[in-house]
Amino acid sequence: MRIPIVRDVLEESNARAQENHALLNKFGICTVNLMSSPGSGKTTLLARTISELNKSALRCAVIEGDITSTLDSERLQPLGVPVVQVNTDPFGGDCHVGSHFVQGALKYLELDKLDYLFIENIGNLVCPAEFYLGEHERVVVLSLPEGEDKPLKYPLMFRECNLCLLNKVDLAPHLEVSAERFTENIHKINGALRVISISGKTGEGFEEWMTWLQTRRADHLSRHGLKAAEEA
Amino acid sequence: MRIPIVRDVLEESNARAQENHALLNKFGICTVNLMSSPGSGKTTLLARTISELNKSALRCAVIEGDITSTLDSERLQPLGVPVVQVNTDPFGGDCHVGSHFVQGALKYLELDKLDYLFIENIGNLVCPAEFYLGEHERVVVLSLPEGEDKPLKYPLMFRECNLCLLNKVDLAPHLEVSAERFTENIHKINGALRVISISGKTGEGFEEWMTWLQTRRADHLSRHGLKAAEEA
Repeated sequence: MRIPIVRDVLEESNARAQENHALLNKFGICTVNLMSSPGSGKTTLLARTISELNKSALRCAVIEGDITSTLDSERLQPLGVPVVQVNTDPFGGDCHVGSHFVQGALKYLELDKLDYLFIENIGNLVCPAEFYLGEHERVVVLSLPEGEDKPLKYPLMFRECNLCLLNKVDLAPHLEVSAERFTENIHKINGALRVISISGKTGEGFEEWMTWLQTRRADHLSRHGLKAAEEA
Repeated sequence: MRIPIVRDVLEESNARAQENHALLNKFGICTVNLMSSPGSGKTTLLARTISELNKSALRCAVIEGDITSTLDSERLQPLGVPVVQVNTDPFGGDCHVGSHFVQGALKYLELDKLDYLFIENIGNLVCPAEFYLGEHERVVVLSLPEGEDKPLKYPLMFRECNLCLLNKVDLAPHLEVSAERFTENIHKINGALRVISISGKTGEGFEEWMTWLQTRRADHLSRHGLKAAEEA
């Protein structure tokens, strides 16, 4: 007699992520998974990022992940871009956005009218690093007030990401930290991780971040032999 | 034919927590589980807290929870108090301290020589709230740079705790936040949660926090009809 075994949860998660990835590739949507601790400033960064991309006629949407509340989605409303809120509370209060949530959220977006999709993950420097959602880029936001030792204490996130945005650099004069020591510790964990010092408040570092985003998108489009989504 | 079922993980976790609780009660050790996001300043707070308690001849030990590294334990070394480092990395990189880790760590401590035990949980504002370790007090540390909306977005932590230390209040002049709005949001989630504004850096709020700790300890000792551990 064979005892049925529940299908491996991570396998199921990865299968859905692959489906998401294929769909995003089909429409040429460069998708960025933004991860960080609570309060690193992801939403402020995101609002400014979308404003900047819109100036270059690049169209964005956001999947906003939270355990509960629509606070971050509300903060993005004035931008007038599509935002889909994903709340994990009714599903046990998951501590990360899962690929099945992204799959569900994609149904609410007009994919043929997008250049970028940002997934703002749940504020958690641990668990989200373990779950691939189908994105093209994984970006960790680390803020100066969190302290220089964080890459050493939460290494997986820094191994799994393609870029680190070192945020709130405007606070440097008021803190006993240095961006250089942050970067040294990041590179102890992942020597290849690009680090951009940035401030969602003052706009410092945005030129470099915008260039990175546009270069990465061009790279993905050419790699998959895709045209950009039809201009609106 | 009966199919064996693996014993409920949470039930197992709670059973071990109860054993820890009984042991801590037996020795009259007031045990505080400190939880927060990464970088809220728990270790700095803890170092100052232990120094202050030592001045009153109150003896402390620490169980230091991290996924990896012994950085926080090293920061506490100069205090000369017993510190047991718990690393979850070899056990799958658990995102919280589990009651079985505490049980293991207690074996390394001379319990008859302690008044307080602090468990510094892994930096994570989500998952640790779900796991009872056998402690007497659950304290959430929230730092001003994290932003006033955090209690609304991560409500479970604020429902599950007995005290909130609102840390890094020395940074208030440099941030667009107010301790009052933080407290309002905390009380929307849990109207009974005591909030102490504090700074691990300047010592602001420590008198109130020390009084709270000593009152809670006296309460636990009298409730369980216990004497304090024998003075050294």
